Amino acid sequence: MSTPEAPGARTARPGAGLRVLGVDPGLTRCGIGVVDVAADRRATLVAVGVVGTKADEPLDARLLAIAQAIDEWLDRHEPEVVAVERVFSQLNVSTVMGVAQASGVVIAAAARRGIPVALHTPSEVKAAVTGSGRADKDAVTRMVTKILRLETAPRPADAADALALALAHAWRGSAPGSPSAAGRTTAMQATALTAAQRLWQEAEAKARRGR
Amino acid sequence: MSTPEAPGARTARPGAGLRVLGVDPGLTRCGIGVVDVAADRRATLVAVGVVGTKADEPLDARLLAIAQAIDEWLDRHEPEVVAVERVFSQLNVSTVMGVAQASGVVIAAAARRGIPVALHTPSEVKAAVTGSGRADKDAVTRMVTKILRLETAPRPADAADALALALAHAWRGSAPGSPSAAGRTTAMQATALTAAQRLWQEAEAKARRGR
Repeated sequence: MSTPEAPGARTARPGAGLRVLGVDPGLTRCGIGVVDVAADRRATLVAVGVVGTKADEPLDARLLAIAQAIDEWLDRHEPEVVAVERVFSQLNVSTVMGVAQASGVVIAAAARRGIPVALHTPSEVKAAVTGSGRADKDAVTRMVTKILRLETAPRPADAADALALALAHAWRGSAPGSPSAAGRTTAMQATALTAAQRLWQEAEAKARRGR
Repeated sequence: MSTPEAPGARTARPGAGLRVLGVDPGLTRCGIGVVDVAADRRATLVAVGVVGTKADEPLDARLLAIAQAIDEWLDRHEPEVVAVERVFSQLNVSTVMGVAQASGVVIAAAARRGIPVALHTPSEVKAAVTGSGRADKDAVTRMVTKILRLETAPRPADAADALALALAHAWRGSAPGSPSAAGRTTAMQATALTAAQRLWQEAEAKARRGR
């Protein structure tokens, strides 16, 4: 396996807008989704999938599988930015360790290629795609399916979450009330976006600092 | 930066015994130490250092610095095995996330090269080098200094911890009561090693499974 040099100037994709690769990190299921998002917020699915590793595999083999998969996805899709779920401690302790280790591998893989990495909290992502920071997984999957105009919902939920992350990142700078791709920007959603955007801007500023 | 292919058969180092690279993972200070350990447990320092990153740097830059340093150390020293501290949740939550992310990067770097990774708990390591699983950092540093016949103690503690990890791993298969390099195998130490060895064997079996 080789880790190629980061390509210099990325080739522009005229009209395709911003290409974001979202990752919902995890050892058992690591969701990966790529979307192109136009200036008018219209989003198009590029690819989505899940890298799975088995709990009885040794940790190094599991992390290697994730590293190789991420390398492959970055090479194939050349995203302008990688959005990764910010790991929190609410999960149970043994789970959170694996999630954090997987996220470390993903973030380092992007950084090796010089691709900016943005971290977003689950509630920022939920707010961005559903209008509520407390939406459940089904609601996120439904909205992702609708926003990307898919015929069938991305499964498992980790795959939908990865797409939601990518969408949330691409939309972070949109003015509240600008038409969403799903055409369902309600007042509540606009408010949620305003709050979420403040968080994004802070996270973005943090992520950019020193770059 | 490039990540070279894993070399095939590693060059033998006649008489040098087992070369172990130990890592005490962390974002702020990541200790790295390399030792050669002979069949009679006599251990020799090869190299020791610390990779430091600043808390105000973005996470991707911090993880990249650690990934690049580990790549460099693996290329330069070609260890037969990498021993990494098993991350626990006793630490405070924000610290443990960074430690887990850094350890993920280190483990994946070794796995990319086909170098086996072993995880050891802090108490296994303390027991191996001091005879007590509850030794403090100063005691670990003192014993590492003595075992490796160093004129000055490795600083900071993270560097000494990385060496202790490497030593503990190299010694994991020694019969209890076999002469330690420090010549101080007490009855208590032998007992501690016996218990620790059981844990090591389990950890080893787990790490090897499926390889």
